[in-house]
Amino acid sequence: MDSDIFLADCPARTTLELLTDTWSVLVVVGLRDGARRHSELLERIGGVSKKMLTQTLRKLERNGLVARRELRSAPPGVEYSLTPLGVTMLEPIAALSRWAEENADEIAGSRDPVRREL
Amino acid sequence: MDSDIFLADCPARTTLELLTDTWSVLVVVGLRDGARRHSELLERIGGVSKKMLTQTLRKLERNGLVARRELRSAPPGVEYSLTPLGVTMLEPIAALSRWAEENADEIAGSRDPVRREL
Repeated sequence: MDSDIFLADCPARTTLELLTDTWSVLVVVGLRDGARRHSELLERIGGVSKKMLTQTLRKLERNGLVARRELRSAPPGVEYSLTPLGVTMLEPIAALSRWAEENADEIAGSRDPVRREL
Repeated sequence: MDSDIFLADCPARTTLELLTDTWSVLVVVGLRDGARRHSELLERIGGVSKKMLTQTLRKLERNGLVARRELRSAPPGVEYSLTPLGVTMLEPIAALSRWAEENADEIAGSRDPVRREL
């Protein structure tokens, strides 16, 4: 496949757009340790709304990264898990998260000149 | 630093949000080979608007990832380049881009069941 992320209609660009979405990244990381219910993800991921979480899960499901399973429980429920393809996303996401954790202080310093001089 | 990307107000989360933005990623990759003018980036990055490119460059500048330099040219111009911190972003972004390129076909197949059966 001839792929170029700079071209708006290239499949690699569409795929990159899927990864460069904060909520998608947080949902994938939130499913790292196994299947979770909607309510569990809602509690785990700070700042996400119910609606945004639902939209993000649908998008990930539509793209084959997350599987949805109806539970025969009372009350009936649904749980979400990573597909094998979704699991492969954990590696590039880990590289992102490491960078974010390692550089958060320096970036916060750039935003706040007073803090930078300390 | 005790960092947790799941907490809405953690510095690591704010930093992750910076990376999980398609235009930011494309601008950083677009500056990989050296300084570029606004018009050059606009031409290179398919689908970005002039306004969105300006906003993205400002955001990256504010966060210490991109440096802006006024050129003593005629007509006067401005060029943008990666700061040393910005350069360190290239590595996690490369992991993302590789994943996007390697999995674009499978993801497109998930979205299109007919194509999946071919």
